[in-house]
Amino acid sequence: MTVLEIPAGSLFGLRNLPYGVFQPKDSAPRVGVRVGDWVVDLAATLGDDVFAQSTLNAFMAQGRARWTEVRRQVTELVQDGVAETAVFAVDEVTMHLPVAIADYVDFYASENHATNLGRLFRPDSEPLMPNWKHLPVGYHGRSSTVIVSGTDVVRPCGQRKPPGQSVPDFGPSRRLDIEAEMGFIVGVPTKLGETIAPDRFAEHVFGAVVVNDWSARDIQAWEYVPLGPFLGKSFATSISPWVVPLDALEAARIDTPTQDPEPLPYLRGEEKWGLDIDLVVEWNGHIVSRPPYSQMYWSPAQMLAHTTINGAAASTGDLFASGTISGREKNERGAFIELTWGGKEPVTIGDQTRTFLEDGDEISISATAPGVNGTRIGFGEVRSRILPATGGMQE
Amino acid sequence: MTVLEIPAGSLFGLRNLPYGVFQPKDSAPRVGVRVGDWVVDLAATLGDDVFAQSTLNAFMAQGRARWTEVRRQVTELVQDGVAETAVFAVDEVTMHLPVAIADYVDFYASENHATNLGRLFRPDSEPLMPNWKHLPVGYHGRSSTVIVSGTDVVRPCGQRKPPGQSVPDFGPSRRLDIEAEMGFIVGVPTKLGETIAPDRFAEHVFGAVVVNDWSARDIQAWEYVPLGPFLGKSFATSISPWVVPLDALEAARIDTPTQDPEPLPYLRGEEKWGLDIDLVVEWNGHIVSRPPYSQMYWSPAQMLAHTTINGAAASTGDLFASGTISGREKNERGAFIELTWGGKEPVTIGDQTRTFLEDGDEISISATAPGVNGTRIGFGEVRSRILPATGGMQE
Repeated sequence: MTVLEIPAGSLFGLRNLPYGVFQPKDSAPRVGVRVGDWVVDLAATLGDDVFAQSTLNAFMAQGRARWTEVRRQVTELVQDGVAETAVFAVDEVTMHLPVAIADYVDFYASENHATNLGRLFRPDSEPLMPNWKHLPVGYHGRSSTVIVSGTDVVRPCGQRKPPGQSVPDFGPSRRLDIEAEMGFIVGVPTKLGETIAPDRFAEHVFGAVVVNDWSARDIQAWEYVPLGPFLGKSFATSISPWVVPLDALEAARIDTPTQDPEPLPYLRGEEKWGLDIDLVVEWNGHIVSRPPYSQMYWSPAQMLAHTTINGAAASTGDLFASGTISGREKNERGAFIELTWGGKEPVTIGDQTRTFLEDGDEISISATAPGVNGTRIGFGEVRSRILPATGGMQE
Repeated sequence: MTVLEIPAGSLFGLRNLPYGVFQPKDSAPRVGVRVGDWVVDLAATLGDDVFAQSTLNAFMAQGRARWTEVRRQVTELVQDGVAETAVFAVDEVTMHLPVAIADYVDFYASENHATNLGRLFRPDSEPLMPNWKHLPVGYHGRSSTVIVSGTDVVRPCGQRKPPGQSVPDFGPSRRLDIEAEMGFIVGVPTKLGETIAPDRFAEHVFGAVVVNDWSARDIQAWEYVPLGPFLGKSFATSISPWVVPLDALEAARIDTPTQDPEPLPYLRGEEKWGLDIDLVVEWNGHIVSRPPYSQMYWSPAQMLAHTTINGAAASTGDLFASGTISGREKNERGAFIELTWGGKEPVTIGDQTRTFLEDGDEISISATAPGVNGTRIGFGEVRSRILPATGGMQE
């Protein structure tokens, strides 16, 4: 038996305990918990086959009472000592997509982001649409292209129609961008016709991940009227491998900013589900933005209540993401289209400048939140590299 | 052994042979083929466990050579005689959702429909957006709420903001509508980064169904800017239980209408994938529309090529639908918002009139297509009844 050493100040201490799907060399993927720089094999230590699977879905479907119990068991286990054969160094395992994604919904919940994009995409109109402060605007994305951190992203091809050109042409996106977001994963499903009120959020939602919702702005700008983004988004959405359970976020729960006008009753709750999460965006190793989740207008509890208010079923494995997180300050913007103001104001990356992503660029988005007693917990990161466009349909 | 009697003029003769998932009383759901008014149990007759499953997915993933071979085997079987224990009357079995739906995409491929909706939703602008004739406009829908014919649809609640009202209110949709569409189901998947050119359509697509993409027009009109429809659509999408294989549609294949401007090369193919399918919409038993699929501007092969041109993976069980099918004539429109011109021109249903759906209304959408030698084949129907709104959040 070994008692795991957790470095002082670790973002993965006993108050975090995020879940992921890991694969040691020459062995099958299975569920683990991260403790410090270690991964604890849950099937081996708890002897439950629900963890001997390649996704978290079966465990997530078991519900909050079970999640709380396992969290207690893991805490005891780590304090009392774990069999050495059930512990792996985090650097020596491969992390997989932790969840079989059911439906994927992306919101648009940052007032700063929606305002900035409104100004850039529709310069002649009011930046915020009339509905924006009445409901969390969202749309369905492509669930089959949700991928785990570390998976390279190939530059997508598609139709582009730059200003001044009368017809579209075809080729690799020239305005490839990121969106720094937080994502929330549903554990306990509902039936068609059921709703999830904001105060029932924690009964259904298992945990949270960092999301990079890759966006090809030139493809998106041409295609998105009137039915919304499609190919400009559907080529890839990356998530971090560790799912931080809601229980680890107790100290991060805050009020949302004041919502004026007051939302309709179905979007109101007593519980605080604003979240004081700080994100960091690195472009080729240089920090370019620190988006603050605390400024998000709509809470994830409101997003889920809205998604289900028409009776739409929620499924184990549903992922819903916040939309780009942008703070008030320029260096808090979570997308490069905002950070470079549509490409007009390049940012400095070491000894180079950038507007949109170039082939070979690497992006890392990480996040941390307050833990108890002045500590912090980490989400880890979502990191990917851009590969050149491929395929038979190039310029 | 019994040789199945197929009534003269049956829409389910030997040239059709659609697949579905049926459940006899006191027995498990499994894959069957419809022949006349009978269902043939494929696991029992062909002795292959791929058919002893509650979805078509495993069979669909096996690919076109296998689909062709099974179609040949079933034809022989029906001609030679089938064990009586493997045959069920279609009226005595329960039909299930035939496919585990992966991603669901809805297109907007009817020029008449897009023009009509543009006029109704944006009366002060050009009805067709500038992109419409350059690409098949589409968006992702909610896959978990795709349901099979026969499942009742509960009137959804949501935010509504009628003209003249300054803020939205909440309650059951007052403008509940249908969309008569055809849907196409992917069998053979692709990996992230692969594309499916229009002439490779038949390698990947297994077959077609009739779709009713229920739409709450008041919810949709308020929510849909700028990211597209969400709750106005996500409460339910109904499909017919029988998946008609592409092989059965050989005689229905026609050119699309002239596409001007000529589409970009990735949307061009040699093969004809326009389809001469006639739909019939019945409202409480009265025929109110006959939408002609033959007039659809974009072919399903172009839709799939577009969906994958950015490298997005296609999955076994992906459903993509055409969008509302509306012909040039008023009585060919596939949605009531068009048929009643936004509710201003009620239609007569027996001794009543209707604009949008009322509780208790029943809708059936059925479809037929040319078979060989002047025969016709049928898709069956998608039929549902509207139930009153339920839940804690009513007016």
